[in-house]
Amino acid sequence: MKLTLKDNVVKEFEGPLTAYDIAKSLGPGLAKSACACKINGELKDLRTEINSDCEFSILTFDDSDGKKAFWHTASHILAQAVKNLYPETKLAIGPAISSGFYYDFDPEKPFGNDDLIKIEDEMRRIVKQDLVISRYTMSAEEAKNALSGEPYKLELCEEHLSSELSFYKQGDFFDLCAGPHLMSTGVVKAIKLISCTGAYWRGSEKNKMLNRIYGTAFPKASMLQEHLNMLEEAKKRDHNKLGRELELFTTSEMIGQGLPILLPKGAKIIQILQRFVEDEEEKRGYHITKTPLLAKSDLYKVSGHWQHYYDGMFVLGDKQKDEDGEEVLALRPMTCPFQFQAYLNRARSYRDLPLRYNETSTLFRNEASGEMHGLIRVRQFTISEGHLACMPEQVENEFRGCFELANFMLESVGLSDDVFYRFSKWDEKDPEKYMGKKEDWEKTQNLMRKVLDNLGVEYTEADGEAAFYGPKLDIQIKNAFGKEDTLITIQIDFQLAEAFGMTYTDKDNQKKYPYVIHRTSLGCYERTLALLIEKYAGAFPLWLAPLQVKVMPISDRHNDFSYKILSKLKLSGIRAEIDIRNEKIGFKIREAQMQKVPYMLVIGDNEQESGKVSVRSRQSGDEGEMFIDSFCEKLFNEIATKINHIEKSNKS
Amino acid sequence: MKLTLKDNVVKEFEGPLTAYDIAKSLGPGLAKSACACKINGELKDLRTEINSDCEFSILTFDDSDGKKAFWHTASHILAQAVKNLYPETKLAIGPAISSGFYYDFDPEKPFGNDDLIKIEDEMRRIVKQDLVISRYTMSAEEAKNALSGEPYKLELCEEHLSSELSFYKQGDFFDLCAGPHLMSTGVVKAIKLISCTGAYWRGSEKNKMLNRIYGTAFPKASMLQEHLNMLEEAKKRDHNKLGRELELFTTSEMIGQGLPILLPKGAKIIQILQRFVEDEEEKRGYHITKTPLLAKSDLYKVSGHWQHYYDGMFVLGDKQKDEDGEEVLALRPMTCPFQFQAYLNRARSYRDLPLRYNETSTLFRNEASGEMHGLIRVRQFTISEGHLACMPEQVENEFRGCFELANFMLESVGLSDDVFYRFSKWDEKDPEKYMGKKEDWEKTQNLMRKVLDNLGVEYTEADGEAAFYGPKLDIQIKNAFGKEDTLITIQIDFQLAEAFGMTYTDKDNQKKYPYVIHRTSLGCYERTLALLIEKYAGAFPLWLAPLQVKVMPISDRHNDFSYKILSKLKLSGIRAEIDIRNEKIGFKIREAQMQKVPYMLVIGDNEQESGKVSVRSRQSGDEGEMFIDSFCEKLFNEIATKINHIEKSNKS
Repeated sequence: MKLTLKDNVVKEFEGPLTAYDIAKSLGPGLAKSACACKINGELKDLRTEINSDCEFSILTFDDSDGKKAFWHTASHILAQAVKNLYPETKLAIGPAISSGFYYDFDPEKPFGNDDLIKIEDEMRRIVKQDLVISRYTMSAEEAKNALSGEPYKLELCEEHLSSELSFYKQGDFFDLCAGPHLMSTGVVKAIKLISCTGAYWRGSEKNKMLNRIYGTAFPKASMLQEHLNMLEEAKKRDHNKLGRELELFTTSEMIGQGLPILLPKGAKIIQILQRFVEDEEEKRGYHITKTPLLAKSDLYKVSGHWQHYYDGMFVLGDKQKDEDGEEVLALRPMTCPFQFQAYLNRARSYRDLPLRYNETSTLFRNEASGEMHGLIRVRQFTISEGHLACMPEQVENEFRGCFELANFMLESVGLSDDVFYRFSKWDEKDPEKYMGKKEDWEKTQNLMRKVLDNLGVEYTEADGEAAFYGPKLDIQIKNAFGKEDTLITIQIDFQLAEAFGMTYTDKDNQKKYPYVIHRTSLGCYERTLALLIEKYAGAFPLWLAPLQVKVMPISDRHNDFSYKILSKLKLSGIRAEIDIRNEKIGFKIREAQMQKVPYMLVIGDNEQESGKVSVRSRQSGDEGEMFIDSFCEKLFNEIATKINHIEKSNKS
Repeated sequence: MKLTLKDNVVKEFEGPLTAYDIAKSLGPGLAKSACACKINGELKDLRTEINSDCEFSILTFDDSDGKKAFWHTASHILAQAVKNLYPETKLAIGPAISSGFYYDFDPEKPFGNDDLIKIEDEMRRIVKQDLVISRYTMSAEEAKNALSGEPYKLELCEEHLSSELSFYKQGDFFDLCAGPHLMSTGVVKAIKLISCTGAYWRGSEKNKMLNRIYGTAFPKASMLQEHLNMLEEAKKRDHNKLGRELELFTTSEMIGQGLPILLPKGAKIIQILQRFVEDEEEKRGYHITKTPLLAKSDLYKVSGHWQHYYDGMFVLGDKQKDEDGEEVLALRPMTCPFQFQAYLNRARSYRDLPLRYNETSTLFRNEASGEMHGLIRVRQFTISEGHLACMPEQVENEFRGCFELANFMLESVGLSDDVFYRFSKWDEKDPEKYMGKKEDWEKTQNLMRKVLDNLGVEYTEADGEAAFYGPKLDIQIKNAFGKEDTLITIQIDFQLAEAFGMTYTDKDNQKKYPYVIHRTSLGCYERTLALLIEKYAGAFPLWLAPLQVKVMPISDRHNDFSYKILSKLKLSGIRAEIDIRNEKIGFKIREAQMQKVPYMLVIGDNEQESGKVSVRSRQSGDEGEMFIDSFCEKLFNEIATKINHIEKSNKS
């Protein structure tokens, strides 16, 4: 049989052989580091037998699916260790996640930190034993017998009564599992259990609360150490912790999950960003709108949200009420069908195009309660939204404009070096999820690929990540913990204009449908704020700092002069406060430094006499004395250029 | 018996006498213009017999309750005229309204404009007959007999089976009616039927659609003419018409009633206002927040909205779901409980107070579908919201600050001469509608009265108009049609801090609850925009004009220089556009004038040669040539001073 390997190298083998055998024959090093494989593009277990021609590749820990197999095996080692130490514990499920794995247990008594240490030791013992891992299958009925003492596993069996179920076994431990898994436990060299939390069985509050143990594992101790260092640094920057400490935002039990409250400092940053975005968009020929946050089901039926996005929406009523002909309103998950009403307000001609609309828009998405997190995963957010209607020959230019605007914004806030680009396409195997015909999708995706290539942007392609009405460019970013998220999108839509009857009269007097580009300039403000908190560890560039200067009289007799300085700063539009508490100046400075205030002005006898101020920056400490006018001048310059000191120091 | 008349004049009469008799003895002129009376503060019919000491006053057309009696009588004349002409028509109800009256009919075939002319003539005939109007009562059973041919009246009788019902009769026409009414039909000298529309019986879509005829009436023809002129002018200014013509806003069937879409020009004005308000508030020591637009029922139960405002809220779910322990979210009708979370984010001391929070806040109110109107009565709006937490001794000063800020805002937008003040108190007869105890209400109302008196503000008092948690000062305004609305409120709240556990540690180390002032700076932006459209008939002051300057080349060869001028204006931050269409300059000017663009710059050969621009203002026409820098200077000055030309011309 002929196997097509990496770089289209074709190699012949005498079949049948397992994937692991093939790896061995390709090289012993490769077999040792093999975690899983891909056969004709599909993820498979190393134990899979191959007996015909195929495309074939070995996945190692360097591949994301290889990592997952590695971590999934580590979760089985965790479960085995728990069963060895606490045999009465019932097992639930234990998947790999983005940077490790977890396993949910129902123990006799909840696990504490001491238990984690014991369990970790037991896991190391299992790794040292280098137990061979084997795979076998049985019918659901047989599986129920084998798992008779495991109520959670039994529940899973019940859901697959007609299937053949696969098991993985290591030593005397076995687990119902779809795999893939490593060949033995010995490869999981470096293990760390991170934490233990509560988690409902199957994520539902109606079920029992279980104990979830999180862990991670690596093929080398040095890799684990590097990961732990990164976590340590990330924890310090974690927006969900630091953002609360710096009083940028908070949450409230009474209000609910995923509904953050932006406190004055956080709200100020968002106000600054919002105005900056709106003004820049106005300069670039956008027209601002302000459209309602809810609408009747009628609107969503035309846009397709009712059919394709119902579960993600907050609906005031339900489908039944709607079918009964009652008015049913829903909060908007997207701005497009609303902003289209501005276009539809009058007849349009080719002379009106391109027509660029922007809006600072609030959106609502009914996220599952387990998925909500800080400012990143929320149920309500505000986004720099916009839609451009253009003729076919204008698409490329307008797309370029959107791309340049997004990059200008990323540069301004200092995130441009941290992003990467993803071309998100539809999933042609699952056309039900999308509006429109295959040939139109392909036409538009080809158009978009051409635009991207002409732009010279480096991107990866991702199937199944398109919006339901068109392909998009996603500008991706990783947070402090390495978790990837979409920050900005630019979408090409060839469908909604027709659905809404948005036309223009072309030069040839024909009515035509414009292309619509859906785009953001800086994404959701909440998410952007979260990324900025982590990027700057709370020490925002001067133009974004909610408090820019703290004036600090050394003693009471310097208050008058200090107030004069304060008022001068405020009149100049600088965000300043005074600290007149009866505290030592060192204490005041330390506190302001903790609050990451960019500049501190110390006012004592010398300053009062000379009429100058002593400038301290959070960045470089004492900067000497200067007249207040020169200080303001220095600040204006720093604000205008949007200098961000982290990048400067990184580059130098 | 002794009657205390106006100005505390006491006069003795030999009782019993009817109010009308007393009016006659006070003066024949007064009797002629009498519409109703007040006895001990209660509105009464002129036919009421008086036989003991009381406070007594006659109400004429100059009093609002007098007007109502007048218009109510006019509505009976309308009903009588309809019955004379179309005897098979069934009668529903016919009240007085803010500037006239209506009557709802169920006719054999719908009334057309021709019918209105005939009916108006018949009404004049009835007036000429000067029919005496008499009042009598009967039991509900007797009433049902008398009204056997009138199904709508019978339905009303069914609701008052245990009461004695009053009737008014003129000629052979009689109607079930609580009154009061005039003494005869002859006084209703000048009548005008305005329009005929559809209206559901009792306002419910489930009932039959009736024919509603609107009309108005006055004691003198000249007064009617004046009113009709006002209506004519108001129609021209009607924000619901003009606002759409000028493309400030629109609405969409698909989105729903009461959910206006602000088009670029309207959204721009609101953006300008919003930034102006936020900046002014920041200068005055406010801290901006950005809080969620929805919350769990838990929050509203503490704030009292769940108990006192449920019907006004959009609830995702219902009371049953909530009682079943499921999460029920609701859109916010007010910002207070949300902004309180900022206060609650940390412990507060007396040093932190007063603490002033502001927010540009979006609110949602579930208005009945019949009540929605343009930008005035809507289901979603954005408001310049704010809450101040302060110690008792700070209330007066902080209230004054709010009052001054509101008046500064009104002056800035040019509405300060159009407002009047209302002190809105609770209704002590209906304590169920409110939170809290009688003595606390009285204490706070007395405090508020003192504050208002110290401010020297002239106000009327209104029972039953308070918020459910405290009394308020309402700044009232009338729209172009004379309809009164609340523009701005400032409320003193002595209850919610305790409900939410908001405390501060006082100098004496005791935990105490602050007073909370709820206030707006400029009210809802949508409503304010509506009032400004009507105030300026769309010709906004320069600082608010969405488009400030239109540059108009006379022919193609002036385009280059015109574009230079345009770019200069834009760089200076002036909102400018160019009109390069191949149209005559006169046409371009007329169009810009129609769009109420403040300034037009005409560019031809002369201008190109001299390097100057020819300035036309929408206000005073040709203003001659000037250099572009001088023109910008002139504009900066006009923007900074917020001059509004209507007032200037009114005052000169």
